[in-house]
Amino acid sequence: MTTVAEKIRAIAAKAREASFAMAKLSTAAKNELLIDMALALVNNAEHIIAENRKDLEAGEKRGLSSAMLDRLMLDHSRINGMAEAIREVAALPDPVGEVTGMWKRPNDLMVGRMRIPLGVIGIIYESRPNVTSDAAALCLKSGNAVVLRGGSEAIHSNVAIAEICAQELKKRNIPEGALSLVPFPEREGVTEMLKQEEYIDVIIPRGGENLIRFVVEHSKIPVIKHYKGVCHIFVDASADFEMARNIIVNAKVQRPGVCNALETLLVHREIAPTFIPFIYDALSGLKVEVRGDEAFRQFAPQATAAVEEDWEAEYLDLILAAKVVDGLDGAIDHINRYCSLHTESIITGNYANAQRFIREVNSGVVMVNASTRFSDGNQLGLGAEIGISTTKLHSFGPMGLEDLTTRKFIVYGDGQIRP
Amino acid sequence: MTTVAEKIRAIAAKAREASFAMAKLSTAAKNELLIDMALALVNNAEHIIAENRKDLEAGEKRGLSSAMLDRLMLDHSRINGMAEAIREVAALPDPVGEVTGMWKRPNDLMVGRMRIPLGVIGIIYESRPNVTSDAAALCLKSGNAVVLRGGSEAIHSNVAIAEICAQELKKRNIPEGALSLVPFPEREGVTEMLKQEEYIDVIIPRGGENLIRFVVEHSKIPVIKHYKGVCHIFVDASADFEMARNIIVNAKVQRPGVCNALETLLVHREIAPTFIPFIYDALSGLKVEVRGDEAFRQFAPQATAAVEEDWEAEYLDLILAAKVVDGLDGAIDHINRYCSLHTESIITGNYANAQRFIREVNSGVVMVNASTRFSDGNQLGLGAEIGISTTKLHSFGPMGLEDLTTRKFIVYGDGQIRP
Repeated sequence: MTTVAEKIRAIAAKAREASFAMAKLSTAAKNELLIDMALALVNNAEHIIAENRKDLEAGEKRGLSSAMLDRLMLDHSRINGMAEAIREVAALPDPVGEVTGMWKRPNDLMVGRMRIPLGVIGIIYESRPNVTSDAAALCLKSGNAVVLRGGSEAIHSNVAIAEICAQELKKRNIPEGALSLVPFPEREGVTEMLKQEEYIDVIIPRGGENLIRFVVEHSKIPVIKHYKGVCHIFVDASADFEMARNIIVNAKVQRPGVCNALETLLVHREIAPTFIPFIYDALSGLKVEVRGDEAFRQFAPQATAAVEEDWEAEYLDLILAAKVVDGLDGAIDHINRYCSLHTESIITGNYANAQRFIREVNSGVVMVNASTRFSDGNQLGLGAEIGISTTKLHSFGPMGLEDLTTRKFIVYGDGQIRP
Repeated sequence: MTTVAEKIRAIAAKAREASFAMAKLSTAAKNELLIDMALALVNNAEHIIAENRKDLEAGEKRGLSSAMLDRLMLDHSRINGMAEAIREVAALPDPVGEVTGMWKRPNDLMVGRMRIPLGVIGIIYESRPNVTSDAAALCLKSGNAVVLRGGSEAIHSNVAIAEICAQELKKRNIPEGALSLVPFPEREGVTEMLKQEEYIDVIIPRGGENLIRFVVEHSKIPVIKHYKGVCHIFVDASADFEMARNIIVNAKVQRPGVCNALETLLVHREIAPTFIPFIYDALSGLKVEVRGDEAFRQFAPQATAAVEEDWEAEYLDLILAAKVVDGLDGAIDHINRYCSLHTESIITGNYANAQRFIREVNSGVVMVNASTRFSDGNQLGLGAEIGISTTKLHSFGPMGLEDLTTRKFIVYGDGQIRP
C-alpha cells in the first residue's frame, strides 16, 4: 500500500514531467484548453453542485459560521462566474516567449532575455472553491504545471472542479500531471507537498496569516508570501480636504475586511486643528471607531486612545488608527517602522512631496491621491491576480501572469569564441 | 559579554537601519562613494598587503596548496585591479528609480513599476579577498546595504578591505551599517547570519558546491544559488564542422575549471560517422579525455567508455562526456534530463532547429553557434556579475546590478476611489 507521502511525491513528479510539455504549448493551444475548461465547468455544473452539497453538509455538522458556509457554497451563478474568470485569463496576452530586450555585443553576439514558465507551481489555499479553477487557469496560461491543495472544508468541490478541468487536458493529449489536486485534506497533505523541492519550483499560499506562517515554516520550496496589509494614508498639509475624505472613507469603509483596506491614517501636524474634526465627523458618522494618539485626540476628544499595538494592527474591520505626524518625514518614518510593505498613499497638492513619497516609500504599491483599495492585480491592469507579495524577492505587490514566469538569456551567434 | 550570535544580530539590525538611507542616496552620491572607496584601497595598499601576509602565513601553516595561496595573495597590481573593478561599477547605469513601464487605467489612474533596492544583501564567499570589494560595490551601487562573510583563510585581508571601504561611508555621513563584514571565521559566523531573516532580505553564496549546500540547508533567508554548470553543446546535422570544432575546443579547453566550460557533447546521429573522428582528433590532440557512449565509440574507438555518472558530471577538467543523439528531439530530451539549468548551445545551420532550441531549452542561458564560455555577466553585457542563478525564482542565469533590485508599483491619481 502506498502512503500519503508516496502519493504526493508521485503527483509532484508527474507535474514536473508534464511541465516540459506545458512549456512548449502554443498560445493558441493554451487558450483553447482554457475555453474548453470553462465550458466543461458549466456543462458539469450539476455534478459540481452535488459534490459541493457534501462539503456544505459536512461544514454544517462541524459548525462552520454562516459566513464561512456562504463562501463555500456553489450554485449555477457562481459556477458561471468561475467559467467567465477562466475565459478572461484565456483572453490575456501570453507572457511566455516575450523577449523583454535584445542588444548587440562588440563581438556581434545578439543577447536577449526571453520569458519562460517557472515550471511547477504549488498553490495552497483555503475555503473558496473558485480558487481551484482561477489558479489553475493562471498557471496553465503561463505555461506551468500546477499542483493544487485546497482546504479540507471544500475537498469534494475542489476534487470535482479539478477532475473536470483535468479531463480537458486528457482530451488534448496534454499530460494530465499538468493539473493535479492533492486529495488529502489532512495537514499531512500540506507538509508532504512542501517537501517536494525536487519537483515544485515555488509555493504560493493563499489564505489567512496562520496558513501562511505554517507554510513558510515547513516549506523546503521557495514561498511567495503575503502576511497582512497594514495600509497607510498620509494627509499632507496641502491636501484637498474633500478629496482626502472621499479617499479615506473609500479605503476604510467600502470593504473593510480585505488586505488593501486602510488601517492607519497619518495627518500632517499643520492641518490637525481643521482636518481632524472634519475627518472624525465623517468617519464616526459611518460607524468607524477611530483610535487616535494624544495629538489626534486633542482635536477629536471622543476618539478612543490608541496604544502601541494599534500601529501594527490589521483590523479588517470598521476601526482606524490615527496619528499626527511632523510632515512628510514624520510620515515616512512611521511608515518605514510599522508598514507591512503592502500599500501606502499620500494625499497632497504638493508636487515635490508627491515625488518624494513615491520614491522613498518602498512598499509593494505606493500611491498619490488614490484609494488603497486599487491595490489589486485587476485594478492595476494586470488582468488577473494570483496573489500579492509583500516580500521583495521575485515579485513585489500584486502578482499577475508575468509573475509566474522567469527570464532566460538567449544568445544568437555566428561562430563566436571567447578570446 | 555579548555572544557571537548577539554581535551578528546587531550587525544585521544596523544593516537594515542603514538600508533606508542607502535606498535614498542619489546616483551621483553613490558613484562618488565608490570612486572614493577605490582610491582609498590604493592609498592603503601597504596596510592591506601587511594584513594579507598574516593570512598567507596562516595558510602556509595550515598547508594550503600553492594554487590556494596564489588565489589568496594580494599585491599592488591586484589591489589596483580591485580599485579598477569598483570604478567600473561606478560607471554602470544606476538601476534604482528606473520606471520599467507605465500605463493608464480606464479611470485615468497612471500605474507604473519602479525599480528599488532589495534592502539588505548577505554575501557568503570563500577564498579570493577581491570579492569583498567587488560585492560591496555592486550592492552599494544598487542602493542596498550589504553584510559580507568571507572565508576564514582570508579573514585579515577581508577585514582590512571592508574597514577601509566603510571609512568612506563614514566620511560621507552614510550609516556605517551599510557595509559590514562578519568578523567571525568559524562556521557559527555563517549559521548565525543565516538566521537573520528579520533583517537580511537575500543571501547570495559564492563558492564551491559544499558551501552552497551548507548555506541552503541552514538558511531561513531566501538564497539565490548556483550549484554547478553541466553545460552541453549539441552539434546538429547541418552544423559547419570548422565552426563546431572551434566552439567546442574553446568551450572545453580555454579554461576548463570554470562553470561555463563545456562538459557534455551531443552529436546528431546523421553526422556521427564523419564528425566524430574529426572532433575526436582535435580534442585528443589537446589532451582532452573523451568519454563516449557506445555509438560515439563506434567512430572513435580509442575514447573511454562513458558510464551513467558521466552525464551528470561537472569535470572542471580536460575531460568531456560525448553521446550520439537522435536529432534535435534526442538532444533536448537528454538536456532536460541531465542539465544543471546553466548554459547550453546548439551548432547548426538550420533556422527552424535554431529557433526550436532557443525556445524549448529552458536553461539560464541558451545559445546558437556560440561558445558556452560567454555565459558570464560581463560577456553578456550586464557590466558586472554578482553571481549566477540556476534556479528560476527572482533571477535566472548571470546576475548583474538589476538583479539586486525589485520593482514596486507606483500609482499617480487625482482623487480616484473604487466604486
